[in-house]
Amino acid sequence: MLLPAFEFDDKILAQGAEISRKLDQLRLEKFPPNAKKTLRYFSMAEVAHYLGVSPNNLKRLHLEKKGPEPKIAAGGRRIYSAEQMIELRQYLDKNGRSDAKKYVPHRKPGEKLQVIAVVNFKGGSGKTTTAAHLGQHLALTGHRTLAIDLDPQASLSALHGFQPEIDRNPSLFDAIRYDDERKPIRNVIAATNFPYLDIIPANLELQEYEYATPLAMQGSAEGKRFFARLGNALADVDELYDIVIVDCPPQLGYLTLTALAAATSVLITVHPQMLDLMSMSQFLLMLGNITKTIKHVGAHVQMDWLRYLITRYEPTDIPQAQMLGFMQSMLAEEILKSPMLKSTAISDAGLTKQTLYEVERANFNRDTYDRAIECMDAVNFEIQGLIHQAWGRL
Amino acid sequence: MLLPAFEFDDKILAQGAEISRKLDQLRLEKFPPNAKKTLRYFSMAEVAHYLGVSPNNLKRLHLEKKGPEPKIAAGGRRIYSAEQMIELRQYLDKNGRSDAKKYVPHRKPGEKLQVIAVVNFKGGSGKTTTAAHLGQHLALTGHRTLAIDLDPQASLSALHGFQPEIDRNPSLFDAIRYDDERKPIRNVIAATNFPYLDIIPANLELQEYEYATPLAMQGSAEGKRFFARLGNALADVDELYDIVIVDCPPQLGYLTLTALAAATSVLITVHPQMLDLMSMSQFLLMLGNITKTIKHVGAHVQMDWLRYLITRYEPTDIPQAQMLGFMQSMLAEEILKSPMLKSTAISDAGLTKQTLYEVERANFNRDTYDRAIECMDAVNFEIQGLIHQAWGRL
Repeated sequence: MLLPAFEFDDKILAQGAEISRKLDQLRLEKFPPNAKKTLRYFSMAEVAHYLGVSPNNLKRLHLEKKGPEPKIAAGGRRIYSAEQMIELRQYLDKNGRSDAKKYVPHRKPGEKLQVIAVVNFKGGSGKTTTAAHLGQHLALTGHRTLAIDLDPQASLSALHGFQPEIDRNPSLFDAIRYDDERKPIRNVIAATNFPYLDIIPANLELQEYEYATPLAMQGSAEGKRFFARLGNALADVDELYDIVIVDCPPQLGYLTLTALAAATSVLITVHPQMLDLMSMSQFLLMLGNITKTIKHVGAHVQMDWLRYLITRYEPTDIPQAQMLGFMQSMLAEEILKSPMLKSTAISDAGLTKQTLYEVERANFNRDTYDRAIECMDAVNFEIQGLIHQAWGRL
Repeated sequence: MLLPAFEFDDKILAQGAEISRKLDQLRLEKFPPNAKKTLRYFSMAEVAHYLGVSPNNLKRLHLEKKGPEPKIAAGGRRIYSAEQMIELRQYLDKNGRSDAKKYVPHRKPGEKLQVIAVVNFKGGSGKTTTAAHLGQHLALTGHRTLAIDLDPQASLSALHGFQPEIDRNPSLFDAIRYDDERKPIRNVIAATNFPYLDIIPANLELQEYEYATPLAMQGSAEGKRFFARLGNALADVDELYDIVIVDCPPQLGYLTLTALAAATSVLITVHPQMLDLMSMSQFLLMLGNITKTIKHVGAHVQMDWLRYLITRYEPTDIPQAQMLGFMQSMLAEEILKSPMLKSTAISDAGLTKQTLYEVERANFNRDTYDRAIECMDAVNFEIQGLIHQAWGRL
């Protein structure tokens, strides 16, 4: 019996719609009543950690009734909202002994907006997980952060509660398109559930930039300087942020080039496997040559730093360990000291479209969670160090 | 101290070149003297398995001095080359009791060329690993197979011994480009180390198709029918193959659409995690709509079958198991019964850019290898069944 042939478009539209509907249903169940994410409270130990003070200091402040009043949770534990963490920073800066405003780490005059492009060519390298956790970490440590989801797959947006095909949210495309429908970048920025963290979510329309740009390049001087569009747009909100994180699409198109021309530094995520490394080597060569071309027509591609982040690393997996050794023999200086380990806690959190910083430790196996967050913190504090170094602070 | 700024293009060109050079060095070490891959011999048990006869039958043939003469390996084991497996098929078809030519499964009149597009949107879903093992399995089971690497990242090509930035191999772009430099498709087909398996390797130039197509669409009727270019090219080699496997790029561009318009069936690889599923749902919706558009202007997108293959599955990973359950509740009928399990044997083989079918079992932990190959066989025989069903054979 021959298989009954079917129309491909009808079938996948039905399946796509069904999956989308069920995902939306999950979102409603998880975040009632309006499917919007909120943020949990943070323990005193967590707050001390992100503020960079000792837990005892914090306890003393509280006992002296200084700073914001925490909530009392089950078991008498004191817990703070993320907004209260910001109040605490301001309190400490105002009343601390030190002259340096080290608790509110905002940019000072002369320190330029840091734009970090998170790139890779090969998908599945942990790019979005990295960008999401980095953005949230920077917000928790007091930096005014803008995350830009430049990947039409919109996974970073998903992690922040957007479901583009249902929410019909705008994307960066609306702020960099070539026609009359272009909007100011402020109009496409949305708040997240983290104070100090805003996002420009993505949607599939972003892909249009790849088709519109070659056509615009034929016609206009503006099109030929496509690479300047993100930088120009960001100039409008320069004073609002300290750091911009751009989650680039895993392809070498105009979106990626535009992000790189706006970037001050680059983070390349790489999973230590042979095919990933081969693909990355080709990516670097091709990207280097294209970058050279747009540099000749005026793009600025000087970077403060470039680092490789090893992701989803399993130290007990011998082939991975061998690949890491191989990479270190070539790129030692530029591989971040802390690799990001593979962790069930991250996938577990992902089930409800959350990050490690959002989930409640109590809902996890304590060891699994602590190991994951320790590893994540090590990565993110290392990157934060690079950012501060680029500002000349260290 | 401020970080010393550097030119991004210079830095990554140097790093890309260094990685590429070391990878080439590895290739020379692994496949001396000319860096070309060869294929190992197969044990009697393996040959019986792929031929679909009992090992005893095969032993008897050999004792009666019928069919090709195997080589004697260490320990007196009889081993056959892949070419000898083909000879055996022909011998059995000619001398077997059955009237049906079941050992040489080539297409018969009325059975159309099967073109299988392996797609996904999210990278890291195991697409290339799947395409590579499927192509080799089909060749080992006697099908004349053409693998087309349509992903500029060229990982499928890498697995077959190509290193595009050094080998300067042609790609499908040479056979579907719009200008005078277009070549016949025969000129871009290369042999692999597997008899019955040819390949059209990829390189980064393939990406040009994404830029050239919107321009061609402005100008010419030929450009407007871009989606017909692969199908037209394949018509020239239709009589040479039974099955074509197309490893599509993980993006929704003209290459993917061109592949789908040529396809008779679709295999969607998906790693069972939340972000992957969200991205896939969007991909399906967008792909469905675009497919509808090109259908209106004449593309043929009737498929014989569509299946989802669960990849890198770890049954002990609870979040993954939950995601699989969620997917089964929506797509049950169309998820392949056998998932592909995550396996160290596959990464281990990947270290030398090889597949499970290429490596020597003796170099592996026997259990790890056997489990991986059993799982891989289950997947590939299931797909082979669908292909034969599409030919109306089952």
